Amino acid sequence: MRLRNKPWAVELVNSHPESVLQNPDPEKKIDWASRFEDFSKPLEIEIGSGKGQFITTLAEQNPDKNFVALEIQTTAAGIILRTKLEKGLDNLQILRGDAANLAAFFDENAADKIYLNFSDPWPKTRHEKRRLTYKSFLATYKTVLKDDGQIEFKTDNAGLFAYSVQSMNNFGMHFDFVSVDLHHEKPEIVEKNIETEYEHKFAAKGNPIYALHADFNE
Amino acid sequence: MRLRNKPWAVELVNSHPESVLQNPDPEKKIDWASRFEDFSKPLEIEIGSGKGQFITTLAEQNPDKNFVALEIQTTAAGIILRTKLEKGLDNLQILRGDAANLAAFFDENAADKIYLNFSDPWPKTRHEKRRLTYKSFLATYKTVLKDDGQIEFKTDNAGLFAYSVQSMNNFGMHFDFVSVDLHHEKPEIVEKNIETEYEHKFAAKGNPIYALHADFNE
Repeated sequence: MRLRNKPWAVELVNSHPESVLQNPDPEKKIDWASRFEDFSKPLEIEIGSGKGQFITTLAEQNPDKNFVALEIQTTAAGIILRTKLEKGLDNLQILRGDAANLAAFFDENAADKIYLNFSDPWPKTRHEKRRLTYKSFLATYKTVLKDDGQIEFKTDNAGLFAYSVQSMNNFGMHFDFVSVDLHHEKPEIVEKNIETEYEHKFAAKGNPIYALHADFNE
Repeated sequence: MRLRNKPWAVELVNSHPESVLQNPDPEKKIDWASRFEDFSKPLEIEIGSGKGQFITTLAEQNPDKNFVALEIQTTAAGIILRTKLEKGLDNLQILRGDAANLAAFFDENAADKIYLNFSDPWPKTRHEKRRLTYKSFLATYKTVLKDDGQIEFKTDNAGLFAYSVQSMNNFGMHFDFVSVDLHHEKPEIVEKNIETEYEHKFAAKGNPIYALHADFNE
């Protein structure tokens, strides 16, 4: 969702090039190894991090993994960065760029997991290609992910969920977890779930959260 | 769901062997050709027809197809039979038997479609094998269905829906239609939907109906 522009966020982002990579040239390879303390850790990417509650919590809980928050808005990137600095999350990098350039940003087989959280549903049929679970995006995720890499997808949008289930199935993906009411699953699943800001607000109204975890194995 | 026993239904069923086949011997081949006026029509089977609102409406709307209502309860079979006789549905046969014997009841490649409507969710993990979308049932449907045959599955049960999506996907099935809110899809989809008795009551409370159509093609 679009955020009101915050001048402090722009300034913060611009003053921390070591933490935020802004609109990198898709023609040039990003030297991720130099941006993380220990690049041998598993790498996980969130596409569209918003204000970053999900990815910063995940990074805090998992110091043994590296994380990239991909987010196109500068204000959002600034809010994520502020949390990163406050919490000292050395294992989190912020990439301000477009998901459409994902394949240019990462090497093949670079990532262990890709998170898609509450992405824009683009409900009109003519906008199908913009949905982050459209087949061309799935093909990109397959390239960027390791062979046993996984996609974790969450949404509150019934139409986007149904579309994504069909799209991932038709692409030949293998489903590892499906829920049409994530917040009312067994306690061990609910407790493990990290909420996004948006998810928290939406679920508080009693609306269901849908989830799908899938991989590219046969 | 279990119905209260109705003596008239038992009597009606027993007096119409031409319309209701009761507990046929799984060792013997059923001569379906002799039970339908024109057996060259496409054949569709509903597993667990209950009081039969769905299958009798479908049979009435599609005189160019043959239908079998599989239902284990005699009272339910009697209610379906009463509707069949009232409406003169020559293209509907009632089979009183257990879904577990499906492969014995039909030849390979006999059916064009199998409907699973609001079947028992069997929520406990130890009862997984009884769910009508457990992999052994899917294997049976694959045998009974033609190569391009399809399963149409509906439920109001979130757990059974999520389970079935994963089970059918993991079985290698191809999804043709997915909805997590069938009654609020586009008008052309909602208008085409034939409700079961149970579905009508449940949806009237504002609860979502889940649907999945899938085939066994690559």
